[in-house]
Amino acid sequence: MANVKAAIPKGTRDFGPVEMIRRNYIFDTIKKVFKKYGYQEIQTPTMENLDTLTGKYGDEGDQLIFKVLNSGDFLNQKVLDQVGLITQQLDTAGIELGDIRDDDTEMRSIKLLNNEKSFNNIMKPMEHYRTLSKKIAPQISEKALRYDLTVPFARYVVMHQNEITSPFKRFQIQPVWRADRPQKGRYREFYQCDADVVGSDSLLNEAEFVCIYDEALTHLGLKDFTIKINNRKILSGIAELIGKPDMIIDLTVAIDKLDKIGLDGVEKELLEKGFDKKELDILKPVILLSGNNQEKLNSLKEILSNSMIGLKGIEEIDKVFSYLQNFSIRTAKVELDLTLARGLNYYTGCIFEVKTNEAAMGSIGGGGRYDDLTGMFGKEGLTGVGISFGADRIYDVLEELQLFSASNQQSTQVLICVFGEAEEAFAIPILNILRTAEINTELFPFGAKMKKQMQYANDKQIPFVVIIGGDEMQSGLLSLKNMESGEQEKLSIQEILTKLKNLG
Amino acid sequence: MANVKAAIPKGTRDFGPVEMIRRNYIFDTIKKVFKKYGYQEIQTPTMENLDTLTGKYGDEGDQLIFKVLNSGDFLNQKVLDQVGLITQQLDTAGIELGDIRDDDTEMRSIKLLNNEKSFNNIMKPMEHYRTLSKKIAPQISEKALRYDLTVPFARYVVMHQNEITSPFKRFQIQPVWRADRPQKGRYREFYQCDADVVGSDSLLNEAEFVCIYDEALTHLGLKDFTIKINNRKILSGIAELIGKPDMIIDLTVAIDKLDKIGLDGVEKELLEKGFDKKELDILKPVILLSGNNQEKLNSLKEILSNSMIGLKGIEEIDKVFSYLQNFSIRTAKVELDLTLARGLNYYTGCIFEVKTNEAAMGSIGGGGRYDDLTGMFGKEGLTGVGISFGADRIYDVLEELQLFSASNQQSTQVLICVFGEAEEAFAIPILNILRTAEINTELFPFGAKMKKQMQYANDKQIPFVVIIGGDEMQSGLLSLKNMESGEQEKLSIQEILTKLKNLG
Repeated sequence: MANVKAAIPKGTRDFGPVEMIRRNYIFDTIKKVFKKYGYQEIQTPTMENLDTLTGKYGDEGDQLIFKVLNSGDFLNQKVLDQVGLITQQLDTAGIELGDIRDDDTEMRSIKLLNNEKSFNNIMKPMEHYRTLSKKIAPQISEKALRYDLTVPFARYVVMHQNEITSPFKRFQIQPVWRADRPQKGRYREFYQCDADVVGSDSLLNEAEFVCIYDEALTHLGLKDFTIKINNRKILSGIAELIGKPDMIIDLTVAIDKLDKIGLDGVEKELLEKGFDKKELDILKPVILLSGNNQEKLNSLKEILSNSMIGLKGIEEIDKVFSYLQNFSIRTAKVELDLTLARGLNYYTGCIFEVKTNEAAMGSIGGGGRYDDLTGMFGKEGLTGVGISFGADRIYDVLEELQLFSASNQQSTQVLICVFGEAEEAFAIPILNILRTAEINTELFPFGAKMKKQMQYANDKQIPFVVIIGGDEMQSGLLSLKNMESGEQEKLSIQEILTKLKNLG
Repeated sequence: MANVKAAIPKGTRDFGPVEMIRRNYIFDTIKKVFKKYGYQEIQTPTMENLDTLTGKYGDEGDQLIFKVLNSGDFLNQKVLDQVGLITQQLDTAGIELGDIRDDDTEMRSIKLLNNEKSFNNIMKPMEHYRTLSKKIAPQISEKALRYDLTVPFARYVVMHQNEITSPFKRFQIQPVWRADRPQKGRYREFYQCDADVVGSDSLLNEAEFVCIYDEALTHLGLKDFTIKINNRKILSGIAELIGKPDMIIDLTVAIDKLDKIGLDGVEKELLEKGFDKKELDILKPVILLSGNNQEKLNSLKEILSNSMIGLKGIEEIDKVFSYLQNFSIRTAKVELDLTLARGLNYYTGCIFEVKTNEAAMGSIGGGGRYDDLTGMFGKEGLTGVGISFGADRIYDVLEELQLFSASNQQSTQVLICVFGEAEEAFAIPILNILRTAEINTELFPFGAKMKKQMQYANDKQIPFVVIIGGDEMQSGLLSLKNMESGEQEKLSIQEILTKLKNLG
């Protein structure tokens, strides 16, 4: 068997012991809060049927779905015929297909875009390969990797509708896969961490999601973060106000970018999309509304007084705020942000986004209400609302703010080091005593130099070492070394136990 | 968007709330024990490079690896040329390729195997599709789904050798995927749960793995299980004894089946493999050795007195047993089983297998020592030993023995039911108090009939319901209903808190 280089696919990651402890700490903290609010965990398979996923994420999303090759003889006559047919069409069109690889082409195409001959030689075949690949893919691949947790959840709800208690409150923490071009902070495999409730239109759910964000992020040690809230119906009201109710999507896409491109940029984009100067003059004061949440709502009530849907949105936000007055928010600032739009078109009511104010980082969470999640699987009109924690970003924030605890009760607490075989035998009953007391303990097998054993304790950040040599065996008093302070003392096993228990 | 049937790929599973609690309970119990013994968690990516996996699991295994289609334009001229070339070869060979699907063919081939013409018409093209698929697959797929945790672990050790503290004790609990034909109890996605240590040849590790099995399975509630232990070197010694050292694999494969096919079956298989009657007469008393472990070892020492490797194996087992005398085994019977062989050829020392004696179930765990795990990635001579828990089977055993606890502190403990909007507002501070006391509590949003709310509590197996109506608001005494006993009493929130805390 030829040697193979030890490597992993680009955009994927190994998680070593330290990262795992930290990731588990984040997930466990969030899970505990989800459970406190009555959310139950489910898991769905890594692979879904390709047709479950296709068409749910737009054309661009479809291209980013990882497809799994059918097992066995995926190439049969039907596939071959189709490959032949399409290839023949290309031949007929007189297109010469060179041996071109995707990456090369994208590089070259940038250089050659203005050169028509080269463009035809390279881009045309490229387009045809793309067409061919798109057409053949579903014929040789029936399954695909989960792209998000939302569509599998919708599929789950419909498939298990007879077992489910409504309202169904579920959380799900699993990896998802996207064939995105990998870059710093963007991976092809990453975890999503979602909670959703379907079958309840009460705004209590929205209010509790604010509480869940507040409680989980507070437990994780964040001290300054903002939960932004808006309502799609208010945005619809604004679109009505400026007389362009049909252009709600263009409008939201543009104002969603206010943070990044500024007011001028938003105006420019809207003008390009066909809004006129007069309309922008109506829009501007609305999205720039200042004051506290109540002041903003009061102004909005007047501004949108002629829009039924706008007033409905205001009423919903009002209700959420009134719930929140009775809940005790610990840390979060809750802010009505009329520029918050969130790209996803399936949102229909309240929308959320969470930002930390302590580190430069995009949103660390978001979500909203949708009115028809399961329609795509034949069950219409089921309302839902959900949120998501951006676990990878939260990890980076906690690392930057040094909020990961240095000590870790989950790892080995004591390493027993011995000088030889007799000491090893002597050590085993001591090992038993410590483990029986639920103290994570290792015995370094005899045969290694003491220096190597100490290095092992250091590398694994084990806080205490028990050293056993001839003296210790004779006296029964063991040397306990505190690896941080370097302090060393001779104690009976009972004293060691008491000392460690008091620390833990 | 056309409606799609809500379904999942065959051989995969959704895990609902109850299953998740039970699965997490199993994994958490095992994890806790792994950690107690100094094992650290790692995770590797779902996708590995295809060449990392290919050739590690035999030809049959290679066919069962799920391959991921390259993203983007996976079909390029190189692939097309090759498809064309192979198809042309088939044409030249005069083979007519009909539109044949894999499943059909296997069915038909059984019926038609004796009909030469049909065989040629169907099986020949099939073979060619197989050849074609095998050749094209690696050209359109660079990545594949993890097939087990062992090869990714070996890859991890080599890739991260400079960060790793030796001996490296890791555990890993992640799903793996195999394109096996699904059947009862065999899935295409299932979890493996492995612990391994590399870089230490001490038999203390073997002894501790016995302790880990004992402790974890005891915690899970099993009361009667056997950890079988053997040593590959003893099996080699036996092969030497009968003068067929080169046929160790045929020998072990056959005696591994003693349980299933009986002594006659084993003898029959060995005769077919080329062993003769005289050799079997030597073998028989050895594998049928009776007595306790020490008696068996004593007999073996005499029988294998001329086999260096056999004696080495006996010495290793002896040492493990002597360690185990100092450890306190709680529940397990530890048994030297000379017929235990375990199929995998990479084992070189001690091997383990765990069986429950309370339920009819195959092995619920196994493992052993291997001397060169990482050689395939260019790092030779690293010794390791590891074990695996069969989580799905353990789940089935616990279910059969009714060992899953009925009560579950992780789920919602209290549901607050209200008659109307005023009661809902009144309930929120109570909700806060219970949650602040770390009691998982839900408030059913107002608007639903009391019967529906009670049904919700029943379905979710919520043990307590607090009912708030007009009376309760006036008196401040809330109705607490025990959902199991049906008992109902009026208590202040403080009394409720005390009561629930005492139960928890």
